[in-house]
Amino acid sequence: MAKLMEDEVFMAFTTYAVIVVLKMLLMAPLTAFYRITRGAFANEEDVARKPAEERKKLLMNHPDVERVRRCHQNDIENIIPFVLVGLLYALTGPVLSVALLHFRIFAGSRICHTIAYLFSLPQPSRGLSWVIGLLVNFSMSYSVLSTVLYL
Amino acid sequence: MAKLMEDEVFMAFTTYAVIVVLKMLLMAPLTAFYRITRGAFANEEDVARKPAEERKKLLMNHPDVERVRRCHQNDIENIIPFVLVGLLYALTGPVLSVALLHFRIFAGSRICHTIAYLFSLPQPSRGLSWVIGLLVNFSMSYSVLSTVLYL
Amino acid sequence: MAKLMEDEVFMAFTTYAVIVVLKMLLMAPLTAFYRITRGAFANEEDVARKPAEERKKLLMNHPDVERVRRCHQNDIENIIPFVLVGLLYALTGPVLSVALLHFRIFAGSRICHTIAYLFSLPQPSRGLSWVIGLLVNFSMSYSVLSTVLYL
Repeated sequence: MAKLMEDEVFMAFTTYAVIVVLKMLLMAPLTAFYRITRGAFANEEDVARKPAEERKKLLMNHPDVERVRRCHQNDIENIIPFVLVGLLYALTGPVLSVALLHFRIFAGSRICHTIAYLFSLPQPSRGLSWVIGLLVNFSMSYSVLSTVLYL
Repeated sequence: MAKLMEDEVFMAFTTYAVIVVLKMLLMAPLTAFYRITRGAFANEEDVARKPAEERKKLLMNHPDVERVRRCHQNDIENIIPFVLVGLLYALTGPVLSVALLHFRIFAGSRICHTIAYLFSLPQPSRGLSWVIGLLVNFSMSYSVLSTVLYL
Repeated sequence: MAKLMEDEVFMAFTTYAVIVVLKMLLMAPLTAFYRITRGAFANEEDVARKPAEERKKLLMNHPDVERVRRCHQNDIENIIPFVLVGLLYALTGPVLSVALLHFRIFAGSRICHTIAYLFSLPQPSRGLSWVIGLLVNFSMSYSVLSTVLYL
């Protein structure tokens, strides 16, 4: 079993996969932080200790919370497919330098995407970083299917 | 490491997993297409170049955009568990023909689901294709747990 | 290939991963149940057979449906990263007892989280079970990166 983790491509995949998943996981505490500082909760039990007249106001959406949630959702839509396809891609035994290129570009593009999203940077910064990540996923998918096709 | 990709069940899993993930990934550009053609954006920076009086109108939801987003979300809720459980299922060494049956039915059900959702086909077309995909996931989960149970 | 499934840590991971994914999958039929009993649908084709005057009312959100959907979304944000990172963690060959501790705490925390969410238990029951699951994910990520780091 330890053999998988002796393969350089698989080690590189593991490293970058955990990094991007960690980045995605951090969006959840960030949402909690925005919910508390902006006073925008989704559940009645979350505001049970507040005075009754404040509660209704605290259960409304806040643009900052919605923004970080959209960013989190975009991570789910892109980072999870990266890890799933990337795992299969790493198992097809690609050339190390090509694989590293895919992993590094993807990780970079998602970090840029998060910065562009959270700080509302002018377009096309966010759109471009999203497209680059998507192209990496398509490229790995194509590579896997052209190596292993068993319908 | 290349040994995994010499196993026929694992090759079949890899093929169908990448196909359904690709299908899921394509929902994102489709959402972008609907957002642009229907004029319904979620972020202020996306409409920054439009005249000020148009902006507010462009930041509203459009039913077509919401429909493709719900379809995307349903993919996330079903396709990702398929890849996760399917990977473990493929590793338990099932019979090739049984495994292929699971993978093919799932891939078919999700393609039907997307068509039924995007073209608003009358029910129970969408409901049925969703249930079939879910049953495949339950069947694979049961198969894995009955082979490997280590609590 | 069968060798992976002879490894005790991998067998334990497989068991707990399938259990938490099954728990997540069950949120979808539960949403369907709430949609039907509460009369709150998202698509026009879902209410096509109802009398016209009822339809508009049936297409509104219902708090119970929104609650189970938020719970499902929280599962997606936490359980999928657990399976992805946990798989890589199991492959790094951790000590069985430590690995089991991670898997069991995570599975327990997610079951508590679901109960706390669906029955609107007073905080911090839900918040605490969410944080515990998150800490397990961080701990496994740290363990993977400290064993395998190939940038």
